Amino acid sequence: MWTATEEHLESISIGAGILGTGGGGNPYIGQLRARQALREHGPVTVLDPEDLDAGSQVVCVGGIGAPTVGIEKVRDRQAYHALRAIEDFTGKKATALISNEIGGSNSLEPLIPAAMAGLPVVDADGMGRAFPEFQMKTFFVHGVSYCPMAISDEKGNTVVIPNAINAKWAERLARAATIQMGCVACYAIAPMSAEQVKRTSVLHTLSLARNMGDAVKMARKNQQNPVEAILKVHHGRILFNGKVVDVERRTVGGFARGSMAIDGMDAYRNHRMDIEFQNENLIARQDGQPVCTVPDLICLVETERGEPITTELLRYGFRVTILGFPAPSLWTCPEGLAVVGPRAFGYDLEYTPIEV
Amino acid sequence: MWTATEEHLESISIGAGILGTGGGGNPYIGQLRARQALREHGPVTVLDPEDLDAGSQVVCVGGIGAPTVGIEKVRDRQAYHALRAIEDFTGKKATALISNEIGGSNSLEPLIPAAMAGLPVVDADGMGRAFPEFQMKTFFVHGVSYCPMAISDEKGNTVVIPNAINAKWAERLARAATIQMGCVACYAIAPMSAEQVKRTSVLHTLSLARNMGDAVKMARKNQQNPVEAILKVHHGRILFNGKVVDVERRTVGGFARGSMAIDGMDAYRNHRMDIEFQNENLIARQDGQPVCTVPDLICLVETERGEPITTELLRYGFRVTILGFPAPSLWTCPEGLAVVGPRAFGYDLEYTPIEV
Repeated sequence: MWTATEEHLESISIGAGILGTGGGGNPYIGQLRARQALREHGPVTVLDPEDLDAGSQVVCVGGIGAPTVGIEKVRDRQAYHALRAIEDFTGKKATALISNEIGGSNSLEPLIPAAMAGLPVVDADGMGRAFPEFQMKTFFVHGVSYCPMAISDEKGNTVVIPNAINAKWAERLARAATIQMGCVACYAIAPMSAEQVKRTSVLHTLSLARNMGDAVKMARKNQQNPVEAILKVHHGRILFNGKVVDVERRTVGGFARGSMAIDGMDAYRNHRMDIEFQNENLIARQDGQPVCTVPDLICLVETERGEPITTELLRYGFRVTILGFPAPSLWTCPEGLAVVGPRAFGYDLEYTPIEV
Repeated sequence: MWTATEEHLESISIGAGILGTGGGGNPYIGQLRARQALREHGPVTVLDPEDLDAGSQVVCVGGIGAPTVGIEKVRDRQAYHALRAIEDFTGKKATALISNEIGGSNSLEPLIPAAMAGLPVVDADGMGRAFPEFQMKTFFVHGVSYCPMAISDEKGNTVVIPNAINAKWAERLARAATIQMGCVACYAIAPMSAEQVKRTSVLHTLSLARNMGDAVKMARKNQQNPVEAILKVHHGRILFNGKVVDVERRTVGGFARGSMAIDGMDAYRNHRMDIEFQNENLIARQDGQPVCTVPDLICLVETERGEPITTELLRYGFRVTILGFPAPSLWTCPEGLAVVGPRAFGYDLEYTPIEV
């Protein structure tokens, strides 16, 4: 157990920006929004999942939408309204909140309603990274129900989905509502039990994000290599290093979709990496050959400062290092790969775990 | 009070097809669906609004979607699921159902869940015709809340809208869900009281549709003029008479939109009528001059048989008579015209009541 205060937000934001594989919402904006909520309502207790009481009612909250829109149409406090809507609908009061994904601003999203409602957040999440679609959560793959869910916008509109025939239909209906709401909304899902959280979430990821951010900040301060610092905190490897030379990006169907090309530098000179994304980076190919695919993490950081570069900020000229991290084992089982493996995104590719 | 049996369905279907001003869903398919429900579950009591008990809980149910899709993807019994969803959400059991619009298949839609649930239907509706959008109901214009509403598809998906900032936002969110559900769905709205039904609904319209259909059938049988028979039952007049020579129709944004041109015959020889529609007929122009506009009713019937011609069935060559009927007074007040007057549909036209 620890207490999340304003001082932790920058580190969480850096670490979650890296773990977000390009998506999850702009972490800097998430940081500013969480900072304001903590300043107004006080710090938030971060609970170890092991410390959850048997009677816990853990509500997952998150943002939904296109990150390209989220930087222009900043979220307000609609996660709080979605939380209250799901409490009203289920007749159950939340005792703790949990992040839907540790990546990007979604790592910090639960802190805002938690501060407002005086609730703790759980040190875990439903992805261990970020993914673009609602159904892509370890919770659902491992048996938690995806309904009912509530979606709220900043204007005062709320939609509840009490029944969907599967999680992908819940995503479809939630996405249609989100697009109407202006491509940016927040949602809350019916409470999980302590047992469900312990069994189906990716554990200790808020601490991981914080530690990763702390390591980057420390490296900057001591003029050390921030990429090496990241790899000391989390087990992964460098996939590539170079300069962004092309970005093709469009906001379509409520997502930011596209691809980027990176010309190699240093050890990767005369090589090229292409990365395709749907909010998040999905497939990295070096010289045309896949070297890392979903659900493994493909993370871009600015080489000099270790600053994560998210999808909506990608542009020509960035000097970047591409990092690869193995996916949590909750994803690499057959049930997990069916939902977030390359084929789930329409690629005719088998998942081959990256070697680290 | 009367009892709706299989024998009444054809007449209701004809009358509702006329009152539907082109929309409300294909009345013949509605008739077949209602017939099957009554055959399985028995007849349905039709209550005079004046006979509603003080403790009544009257749930409005209806279909939502594009009529062009509804003839290919026939509705199932999702109105029953929407009814149960709104009962669950509000914790109130319905004591009677009411049609959202008397036009087209929506006149018959409540009979299906009513037969299944053993409930009566009220002899009234929320439009006195058909309109394309959810917010266009006399209920809402005169103070009934448009939330919560439930929308269900035939697959088992349900969406509830507990809060929308206004009725147009409820429409927007419901339409987005409907499009995902395949452009055809059914909805139910939170119960109204007896007082609300009496004050805000268009009264005795199910009887009107039945009587109009009876008159058409009788005229056919006796080889009399069916158009004259219609005008004896309901106060209106002939606007035009001719042959459909052009139809432009597309399914866009969840609606059937377009226009038709009619070349005049008989008294209207050498004249032309153009009618624009969005599911329903909105504006009729003779030789370029508006002669009838929403909310007044612009109704197409086949001249020989008095058969209503709905938007999705329009095609070159039909010999048609265009009838105009004055809108109910619940619509011609300023609050009503703000929602369904020509300007609400984007036309730079004042509403001028048709002379009858």
